[in-house]
Amino acid sequence: MNTYLDRTCLENRAKWRALSNDPIFQYRKEQTLPQLRELAFQRMKKVFASKIVSVRDFKNNPQNIFTAHEMIALIDASLATKFTVQMNLFGGSMICLGSDRHSYVLSGIDDMSIVGCFALTELGFGNNAVEMQTTAHYDEATKEFIIHCPTTLSQKYWITNGALHANHSVVFAQLYMPIKGTKEYKKEGIHTFLVKLRNQDGSLREGVFIEDMGEKLGANGVDNAKIAFNKVRTSRESILNRYSDVDQNDVFTSTIPKMRDRFLRVADRLLSGRLCIAGLCMSGTKTVTCTGLRYAKDRLVLGPEGKSTSPILEFQLFQEAVYPLIARTICLHIALNQIKELYSKDIFTTNMEIVRYVCFIKPLISWNLREISGVLVERMGGQGYLAINRVCEGIGLGHSGITAEGDNSVLMQKVTKELMADLQSKKTSLPELTQCPKREIPSLEDVTQAGTVLNLLKWREICKVKELGEATVKGMQSGKTIYDIWTRENNDLVQSVALAYSERKVFELSIQDIQVNSTNSIQKPLVTSLALYGTYLLNKDIGWFLISGSISTKAAQNLALRQKALVKEFHTYAFDIVNSFGIPENLLSAPVAQDYVEFNNLPWTKGETKPKL
Amino acid sequence: MNTYLDRTCLENRAKWRALSNDPIFQYRKEQTLPQLRELAFQRMKKVFASKIVSVRDFKNNPQNIFTAHEMIALIDASLATKFTVQMNLFGGSMICLGSDRHSYVLSGIDDMSIVGCFALTELGFGNNAVEMQTTAHYDEATKEFIIHCPTTLSQKYWITNGALHANHSVVFAQLYMPIKGTKEYKKEGIHTFLVKLRNQDGSLREGVFIEDMGEKLGANGVDNAKIAFNKVRTSRESILNRYSDVDQNDVFTSTIPKMRDRFLRVADRLLSGRLCIAGLCMSGTKTVTCTGLRYAKDRLVLGPEGKSTSPILEFQLFQEAVYPLIARTICLHIALNQIKELYSKDIFTTNMEIVRYVCFIKPLISWNLREISGVLVERMGGQGYLAINRVCEGIGLGHSGITAEGDNSVLMQKVTKELMADLQSKKTSLPELTQCPKREIPSLEDVTQAGTVLNLLKWREICKVKELGEATVKGMQSGKTIYDIWTRENNDLVQSVALAYSERKVFELSIQDIQVNSTNSIQKPLVTSLALYGTYLLNKDIGWFLISGSISTKAAQNLALRQKALVKEFHTYAFDIVNSFGIPENLLSAPVAQDYVEFNNLPWTKGETKPKL
Repeated sequence: MNTYLDRTCLENRAKWRALSNDPIFQYRKEQTLPQLRELAFQRMKKVFASKIVSVRDFKNNPQNIFTAHEMIALIDASLATKFTVQMNLFGGSMICLGSDRHSYVLSGIDDMSIVGCFALTELGFGNNAVEMQTTAHYDEATKEFIIHCPTTLSQKYWITNGALHANHSVVFAQLYMPIKGTKEYKKEGIHTFLVKLRNQDGSLREGVFIEDMGEKLGANGVDNAKIAFNKVRTSRESILNRYSDVDQNDVFTSTIPKMRDRFLRVADRLLSGRLCIAGLCMSGTKTVTCTGLRYAKDRLVLGPEGKSTSPILEFQLFQEAVYPLIARTICLHIALNQIKELYSKDIFTTNMEIVRYVCFIKPLISWNLREISGVLVERMGGQGYLAINRVCEGIGLGHSGITAEGDNSVLMQKVTKELMADLQSKKTSLPELTQCPKREIPSLEDVTQAGTVLNLLKWREICKVKELGEATVKGMQSGKTIYDIWTRENNDLVQSVALAYSERKVFELSIQDIQVNSTNSIQKPLVTSLALYGTYLLNKDIGWFLISGSISTKAAQNLALRQKALVKEFHTYAFDIVNSFGIPENLLSAPVAQDYVEFNNLPWTKGETKPKL
Repeated sequence: MNTYLDRTCLENRAKWRALSNDPIFQYRKEQTLPQLRELAFQRMKKVFASKIVSVRDFKNNPQNIFTAHEMIALIDASLATKFTVQMNLFGGSMICLGSDRHSYVLSGIDDMSIVGCFALTELGFGNNAVEMQTTAHYDEATKEFIIHCPTTLSQKYWITNGALHANHSVVFAQLYMPIKGTKEYKKEGIHTFLVKLRNQDGSLREGVFIEDMGEKLGANGVDNAKIAFNKVRTSRESILNRYSDVDQNDVFTSTIPKMRDRFLRVADRLLSGRLCIAGLCMSGTKTVTCTGLRYAKDRLVLGPEGKSTSPILEFQLFQEAVYPLIARTICLHIALNQIKELYSKDIFTTNMEIVRYVCFIKPLISWNLREISGVLVERMGGQGYLAINRVCEGIGLGHSGITAEGDNSVLMQKVTKELMADLQSKKTSLPELTQCPKREIPSLEDVTQAGTVLNLLKWREICKVKELGEATVKGMQSGKTIYDIWTRENNDLVQSVALAYSERKVFELSIQDIQVNSTNSIQKPLVTSLALYGTYLLNKDIGWFLISGSISTKAAQNLALRQKALVKEFHTYAFDIVNSFGIPENLLSAPVAQDYVEFNNLPWTKGETKPKL
């Protein structure tokens, strides 16, 4: 199972597992904010010193970049966050937006003599980044760009690595080129610049203003910064010039005519970031799930005779709350593997289908992490609430994933928008299904056959797309703007189109992958996971399926019973599945993931680890 | 609205609001664990020094105890948690379980010369406390009890105030009385003892073992402890003797014959605790909601012209995610007020209806807090994730509330159990409704009339109770145990009976209270809240209403549309409602609750607080 889910770079995964034995990666409890940051920094150094991954892998082996994220996230979310900014956002930008003249940075990244950050988001423009206000005026006299934040709202916000460790940054700014012979400037849209933040001795460059953002809900080893520039100068060569450049004669050229497209092109840097965040959240999900189930198996509570003899894991309450989410985790994992593979073959992709996949997988996986962590913390009782057991970390990490690299709901809206546009221009088509599956399959006694579920999911997608299309046309005919129709009147529908599309896709990708790639020994747990995920999807939206007449009330009753039965079936595999995630034992150091009774031993009961009942 | 919701002890609430101006209550960011604990302790001293509340209020004015919890929780969840243990669990136990010989403790509580804790929960017996293993053997020779934790699992766990500040504890233990003339002991069941933990100089008494539990998901100002006793002696008079006692001749007597009942009687101490936790979580809910909506009103994002001109609050996405939960908050608040009133009139209540109310209101309110906090953190984006904005505190506080004073799901199961028992013995009856409301009301074009909603909720409750009754009988006829039927096969049904009952009750109490107690000026927002809450309840469980045939698909479609319309209607009141919660401005110190742009001003943009667009 581990090999099936890990899939890529198996040799390097083994190296990461070996490296994780280094004492620096051991969990340390109750660290202060400065200690957490220093620890994450020292861990990042150890990670780069290992040479298991290089920023140059972006060109030859992008899968190794994703693998590194996934493995490092098993150690520590703060480390993984700092790493993804150094490696993907900063390093990846050098490779994907820069040119040879920036390649000196690459060695600096790998040996960490250069630590980078990624200054895109502004306080007032997290959403609507195209309207950002930081400017880069080109000065012909000195052949420099002048980077400036004119307003409070234009300061760069949330900049990972910025508060303490970064000496360089990729800065997004509105480029203004002087108009020859005048004192006027022409706006050329958003471009990226490599800007030095700190001097050799770590002091700030003149005009660079940095403030630590302080404590957060999670990942407090990350040194997020507010960064603002007060007329900071940077060389002509600092513009990352894959698409646009300023030549020695101060002439601006760009291969992209439209300003908005220039922004969209540089913002594509977020695509790989979304896969990194998805991988990072998936690893977090594995850790909390494995920890939670180990505790649930060990922890004895009220049993049939009134004594404390029954593991929490045997309770239907636990199983029904947790197992559908583990089944979902498995299917999301499978889909992520396939999406990573598609993207890795085409890292400058303009294939909108791949873009849509990338845009929905990060939301689905980060939401899943938050939900499963919350459910586990609750079902574990007090032990879930203790920081040392690390399950509650998943809530913070989930929220961080939900917000990072594009708010989940904004991304889902983008999925819908791109999907509707591509459908309209016939660049893509709806699933082939001409009528409601109910009419095809008169008896729905068993609605959980994968084919039946898939057809129902397709039908929901078709209906939702149609409904949104009609609402949009109707609204526009009555003189409303798309903006009003989508954000003021039908936002739930806009979100649910994306969800219907995404869930269908994840389910479909899972069916295909299990058919093709699973081996005999793991086929049963995978097929059960798939069936449980499918049944759960239908039950979760049972109101829609009933109202739309896609399933009968009889079938709906069966669905509920089927889910209960599938949960029982999943129970026979659940503990083995989460223990096959390949998390090194030394990283599962939470007392409840090992022997929580032993951990709590009293001086006068040393050695006693099981209750006398 | 504030007066309507506050309801009780209005003069003292004004005093609490005035007291909250004391500098000690100002928010302090990024405190270490020791700083947080010390701060909470100093704040607790200030609270008791105010004399606005006294432990003796339990006898004469219990509402003042609840009021204090609610007001203090607006300041700081850690303070409120330490306070509730000192005041309610420890102090309330002295009053409700002790006698005159323990009354010296009361003055000590009020002047904090005595700081108490409440040692009930054991590591292995959070659930199933009746099986706890800590023992109290009576020693005739010295006329003392010997308190002992024989196993690791029997150590007292999670004991608030224990790690640092408590010098006394109420200890729950299995009492063993010597059998005259033998070396044998007779088990007399669980009793409570007042045990001194620390000497005058703060050092631990011999045999008392205390370990700090360390960092948690939230409320880190609380010094939770593991406490274990190694043959610690305490006087004969230390037994809290309202129900059982040992006299001067070493004779044990009890007014409660059965051992299990003795435990249940002392465990009733948790009832008032549940109301305290509910109030505490309700205050947390108000703070996060008011903070979140203020930010949503100020924060400008993508508007119709592509500029950042639209407040988040205007987005349907925000409104539909948040407003039904605020409507639910209002109705839960109204129900809590009534339940507090019923309980305060009868603090030794054996009225099982009141017990059921107390057992469901804590779960519903703590779940609501967790959900609304999570939704707000997500919808606020990065600002929600920043600790200084304090909205994410609601997630930790919610989880703490979910676990404290009885796990929510365990309490809901208790609600079902007591309800089914009382129905069977005809001590209570189901709502009067002889048939499905659908048949009474042929046209369900408008299903959101309060009366219609209430009937539908009643019908669901009747059906669920009947279903569980039948499943139980059927299971027992086929030789299964109640334990298996309820925890292994029908746990979802057991939980949903309690939920159906609770939601119907909250809705019903809200209808009544709004009719009787609301004034003209607040009637409209209250009625809208009620309608939105009712519609939301039906939509949340729409699958059941459709499958059971209680509503038609046409009505279900209308319900969805009605909820959208009610959300729009609620929007006209929402901001005013959350600002009428009466939270002192100095406690709403989160930058996003005041002026987040001002808070982030750059040196070179001082004074500029609005974007130039």
